[in-house]
Amino acid sequence: MKYDTIRAIQWQDHTLFLLDQRKLPAVVTYLEYHSAQQVSDAIRDMVVRGAPAIGITAAYGVVLAARERYAQSADNWHETIKTDLQMLAASRPTAINLFWALARMEKCIAAIESDPFDRLLQEAKAIHEEDIAANRMMGEAGAALIEKGSAVLTHCNAGALATGGFGTALGVIRQAWSEKRLSGVYADETRPWLQGSRLTAWELLQEKIPLSLLVEGAAASLMKQGKVQWVIVGSDRISANGDVANKIGTYSLAVNARHHGVKFMVVAPTSTVDMSLDSGDAIPIETRSEKEVLTLGDRVIAAEGAGAWNPVFDVTPAELVDVIVTERGVVSQPTAEKMLAMMKNH
Amino acid sequence: MKYDTIRAIQWQDHTLFLLDQRKLPAVVTYLEYHSAQQVSDAIRDMVVRGAPAIGITAAYGVVLAARERYAQSADNWHETIKTDLQMLAASRPTAINLFWALARMEKCIAAIESDPFDRLLQEAKAIHEEDIAANRMMGEAGAALIEKGSAVLTHCNAGALATGGFGTALGVIRQAWSEKRLSGVYADETRPWLQGSRLTAWELLQEKIPLSLLVEGAAASLMKQGKVQWVIVGSDRISANGDVANKIGTYSLAVNARHHGVKFMVVAPTSTVDMSLDSGDAIPIETRSEKEVLTLGDRVIAAEGAGAWNPVFDVTPAELVDVIVTERGVVSQPTAEKMLAMMKNH
Repeated sequence: MKYDTIRAIQWQDHTLFLLDQRKLPAVVTYLEYHSAQQVSDAIRDMVVRGAPAIGITAAYGVVLAARERYAQSADNWHETIKTDLQMLAASRPTAINLFWALARMEKCIAAIESDPFDRLLQEAKAIHEEDIAANRMMGEAGAALIEKGSAVLTHCNAGALATGGFGTALGVIRQAWSEKRLSGVYADETRPWLQGSRLTAWELLQEKIPLSLLVEGAAASLMKQGKVQWVIVGSDRISANGDVANKIGTYSLAVNARHHGVKFMVVAPTSTVDMSLDSGDAIPIETRSEKEVLTLGDRVIAAEGAGAWNPVFDVTPAELVDVIVTERGVVSQPTAEKMLAMMKNH
Repeated sequence: MKYDTIRAIQWQDHTLFLLDQRKLPAVVTYLEYHSAQQVSDAIRDMVVRGAPAIGITAAYGVVLAARERYAQSADNWHETIKTDLQMLAASRPTAINLFWALARMEKCIAAIESDPFDRLLQEAKAIHEEDIAANRMMGEAGAALIEKGSAVLTHCNAGALATGGFGTALGVIRQAWSEKRLSGVYADETRPWLQGSRLTAWELLQEKIPLSLLVEGAAASLMKQGKVQWVIVGSDRISANGDVANKIGTYSLAVNARHHGVKFMVVAPTSTVDMSLDSGDAIPIETRSEKEVLTLGDRVIAAEGAGAWNPVFDVTPAELVDVIVTERGVVSQPTAEKMLAMMKNH
């Protein structure tokens, strides 16, 4: 297949292609998906990751499900596809974008009376394109907040790979870099999956944006030495009061940022905002296998017999967040009232 | 050779044996050392690590140097050995125990008029034995501070492997475990060298003390969820005002501990205290190769072309430390005055 550079999710020739992010940066390879079951497995196994990217992928998964269900029974597919929607919803728990995209596709399904393929594909592509457009808008809005000469620290990968393209946190960093605002870019390596070292570094270096990686333990020293002015991260779910779920390690950065007077920016489309949850305490936090901490690839890195605690997200309370950037606007010192006002801003 | 369990440094048959800590936990193997040059290389290359262990190793290195220099010239060895002392002092910069042990050996050298071997070996063994005794005393004093039913988090390896035996932070944990005070033990994996996963886990599991490993990024969540009541760490150098240099990542834990009301204990013998430095700002912080962050063993884990910032220690200011435990006593809320009083307490 042909593909654009850094489009992790692509629809071509009636097939979904996903860049296998588990293999980056060593190998750049796309896998093919023809069924909802395959797509669900891909999300769970982290072939694709990043909240917006999971949502978009699930939307294409619904297209594949509908094609199959409609071929099985043109009369009954509205009913039988529900199993596929449930399966896709069960693939990962924390990123709200998954449920948001599935709800949007489900609404679309309800209104279809004939062959659903074209209409659902159109909707999935719309979700995809809107996400890229949102990233661009957030990139500009976020970059405008960064004083010229600032250095920034990011965590995990909230880039083109984690979204439809361009990125949330990395969208802001890309935009700010192109505007020559940045004196430096730092990225946490982000254990246990090393999304920083593997994905963020790969992505930024593709565009010749230089960066320095560091272990999470070094971030506090980086701040203390005045080497960064902003921490910029994405999010997997934001509750109605502005609490932010994101990759494990984000909360520690937020505590340290506040302690050191470093500003903390969250960049996420409104599809990440869950207005049904009053606070971050209600956000389900995925715990994954101990093995992700105890091994690296096929290599055992810990003493045999050791256990591991592996929550893969954490929640940063709104009071530690200086600004949330969405495609509908910028919320400073987020509160429930400000979040509601932003969400109503169409 | 025969060796006790978990004695990383052993003198037998006129030879220094060091447990190769780079190979743990996969392989338990001791390397032989016959010269000061070899010992200096072993410290620099981290065959042995941990501030007290580095000091003890250097002391034995002086014994090997003296044997060689005295054999070369019984008249001139006081002069020629100075090169060896300088070489050993240059092996690593942050752990003050290295310079403390060398100064003690140098003082001993000055008083020797005949064959120095027996006297210097006696002194090195004294340094070694005193360290173990200090660990035992600190273990009891530190454990007494821990409320029954507490869970603790440690960072890096401040155990038998990092000392003459028993350990500083892990000495307290061992002692508290044996007194049935602990409801759980957590250890940061401690990137980039994974001393937590490789060494602390290995050491504790040898004695059937169960533990859960976590990535550094998860420590803030662990605290927020109330899963730990104490953070307990060792130190590589403590300045006269009670600022604490320790493995990178310690400072972030201290900031988070304070934020969450978790208590923060530092356990270190007085050989770690550098009364010549007014504050931690003056402690030299070693920066090691980028490669330690960008690779794991022989495996490249980061995108090609990425840089890395790899300071391997950080400084925790005294105001974030609840208690410093030495073999001479316990200093709560350390200040320069309290540190001075403790150091005078013989």
